[in-house]
Amino acid sequence: MKKLIKNVGIYRDHKITESQNIAIKDDLIIGFPLDPVPAAYDEVIDGNNMLAFPGFVNTHNHIAMTVFRSYADDMQLMDWLEKKIWPAEDKLDSDIVYAQAMLGIAEMIRCGTTSFADMYFFMDDVARAVENSGIRAALCRGMTGITPNAQQALQESKTFYQTWNGKADGRITIMLGPHAPYTCPPDYLRQVVDVAHELGAEIHTHLCETKGEIENIQKQYGKTPIALMDELGVLDCGCLAAHCVWVNDEDLDILAQKHVRVAHNPGSNLKLASGIAPIPKMLEKGITVGLGTDGASSNNNLDIVEEMHLAAFIHKAHTLDPLVIPAETAINLLTEGGAKCLGYTHAGKLEAGCKADITLLDRNGLHWYPKNDMMSLMTYASNSFDVDTVIVNGNVLLRHKEFTTIDIEKVKAEAERTKNKLFASII
Amino acid sequence: MKKLIKNVGIYRDHKITESQNIAIKDDLIIGFPLDPVPAAYDEVIDGNNMLAFPGFVNTHNHIAMTVFRSYADDMQLMDWLEKKIWPAEDKLDSDIVYAQAMLGIAEMIRCGTTSFADMYFFMDDVARAVENSGIRAALCRGMTGITPNAQQALQESKTFYQTWNGKADGRITIMLGPHAPYTCPPDYLRQVVDVAHELGAEIHTHLCETKGEIENIQKQYGKTPIALMDELGVLDCGCLAAHCVWVNDEDLDILAQKHVRVAHNPGSNLKLASGIAPIPKMLEKGITVGLGTDGASSNNNLDIVEEMHLAAFIHKAHTLDPLVIPAETAINLLTEGGAKCLGYTHAGKLEAGCKADITLLDRNGLHWYPKNDMMSLMTYASNSFDVDTVIVNGNVLLRHKEFTTIDIEKVKAEAERTKNKLFASII
Repeated sequence: MKKLIKNVGIYRDHKITESQNIAIKDDLIIGFPLDPVPAAYDEVIDGNNMLAFPGFVNTHNHIAMTVFRSYADDMQLMDWLEKKIWPAEDKLDSDIVYAQAMLGIAEMIRCGTTSFADMYFFMDDVARAVENSGIRAALCRGMTGITPNAQQALQESKTFYQTWNGKADGRITIMLGPHAPYTCPPDYLRQVVDVAHELGAEIHTHLCETKGEIENIQKQYGKTPIALMDELGVLDCGCLAAHCVWVNDEDLDILAQKHVRVAHNPGSNLKLASGIAPIPKMLEKGITVGLGTDGASSNNNLDIVEEMHLAAFIHKAHTLDPLVIPAETAINLLTEGGAKCLGYTHAGKLEAGCKADITLLDRNGLHWYPKNDMMSLMTYASNSFDVDTVIVNGNVLLRHKEFTTIDIEKVKAEAERTKNKLFASII
Repeated sequence: MKKLIKNVGIYRDHKITESQNIAIKDDLIIGFPLDPVPAAYDEVIDGNNMLAFPGFVNTHNHIAMTVFRSYADDMQLMDWLEKKIWPAEDKLDSDIVYAQAMLGIAEMIRCGTTSFADMYFFMDDVARAVENSGIRAALCRGMTGITPNAQQALQESKTFYQTWNGKADGRITIMLGPHAPYTCPPDYLRQVVDVAHELGAEIHTHLCETKGEIENIQKQYGKTPIALMDELGVLDCGCLAAHCVWVNDEDLDILAQKHVRVAHNPGSNLKLASGIAPIPKMLEKGITVGLGTDGASSNNNLDIVEEMHLAAFIHKAHTLDPLVIPAETAINLLTEGGAKCLGYTHAGKLEAGCKADITLLDRNGLHWYPKNDMMSLMTYASNSFDVDTVIVNGNVLLRHKEFTTIDIEKVKAEAERTKNKLFASII
């Protein structure tokens, strides 16, 4: 199956070049023909007035938490967790998680996302939603070592890996998801590391999200969460660490040395008042960084383009330096940086031999006028509603803003039905 | 001319109430009939699955700077001004400003904006664009006291006031626009204050935008910019002050005491690395605050919904308090707070007797599902593309995302033509 995207502006080699063509065969980009013959392709996509980017990557999510979107906001974190979220999470089931995962996936595709990393429960249902929708994902079952089901979670993670890793035409990869150093004691983390080595699985965890976490871990173990995770071998498994807001220079050196990839979640970090991660410093040290929305309950949308705006904005004010996170860096966080975070070796770039994960934005919106610098317009002026077409693994999932694989009215109705079911069960 | 918005969720009395009706006669909201007879109205707008808000207000703009949108980003402020903006601004003309103002107004209407405050040059052309488009605006000619045309600018401001104040069915009001304390020496500001009193005009100015401004004014005059402006009588004229990022507690007391209204521009303050204004403290002191985009070259869009997200986000992280700027406050900044900033006494609320400036958002987007708390969804999950219908002064300017008063393809073409003309003249 061959596809051609014709006459499109493309982001390649760190710049935008107009009037290019992209040839796709099956799941791969195969080249950029100068004078293609449309008849040689099964499908020709008109890229007129569009820009093609490597598909956007959402590097940290708890996708089924869409059910809690705007359910309980403007609260202190522990109130929110103890009074609202944890009691409700106890009542989640397979039906609810599948419906909410489909909602979240649909929203992400609509915002140009072609792959995402997820940590939650009932992950077989999330994997089914990934398989059915056509998106790409790196999934893990969240594990905590301090709850009665700690061992069960570890066993389920193993089974989850064995069942799903490499499935759905290779679109699904499985990681291990120890929740955080404050919910997973050292002994438990050692077990996770053993399983990671046994399976060859990488790790996705939360790290250094709040000031309180640093203070508690420091008090309990006499070291920072990153030093602790390093000592326990977690960072040697290939590690995606979400947040990394409160990190000192030694922590940054460890992250760089151990090639830890950082999921930067500006919206969540701002909304939950966690703080602002030192992303410019990380990039200086060569640390790989991608963008994440976190769950919809901490954001409250899954709009990765908005996260790019936030990333391009907040570090400038935080450092009082207007030159940090310039346009090219912001676009890289959204695309190639994100793909590296998820452990993808042949994605995140528009290059022959890379997976055909491509997001097309139309430039008809008023905010794209007048036509000055395209990189800057993309970074500072664009909007997720500019996303016109989304291609994952060579398949068109969104065409002119319409879904091809998802019955969107059914997804909305199911999201509403399962939300009502959940909340009926806890009142 | 009577209009009815039927069966709509409305934001009124600080909360959202479903299944309401809004009756409009000419330019005013006249009531909320419980069981209206559609035949009694000239037009009935179906509000099904929509939310009605007081029209969004953009309290600080330099609208014709759309021509510089993404023209020169990721630069130091003085490099940007001296090498890029000032040489280009010298070549602006009436034709360019009108075309770019129409572009900016169209973009603002598309984002739900019903009124805006603007400071720039060739303001007769901006006023014509306001008159022709149907939007409401508080306009001023920007004045600097350190340039050769200082006296001319003051005279033009006077003429501009006399020509346009109260025109376009009362949609246009005129203010005086001394640029900032660092571009307007005390003697000049005293002259501005005299003219303000003579005309009964209010003042729109930039105040305390950067740390450098505070340091320089302090060094030159031995007091803060706000203390200086207060001493010169500027704050006694009725004053809209943009930015107010670097203000101390005494400054805040002066702002409160003199009823200065603050235009908070989070996007611009972040992007230009100006800093983060202490908005929660201002609100505690009872200071009126609205939201602004600033010019498109500092943002780079005119999306006031994005500014609301930013305002709801950044102060939580800046103060490490997740409870500051909760949903209701954020919505108030966008609506009533903004209307007060512009000096409107009968706007900014959905109340009988208020101007019929109304923004309708549709709730069909995936990010509005599942249907939990509406105030929270609006504040944290919504998007400017949810804006469906925009009514100003009782007239529908946007209906189901289509413009009624603006030929949008012509606006885009004119924006492009005049941009090319401008840049051809400076190369």
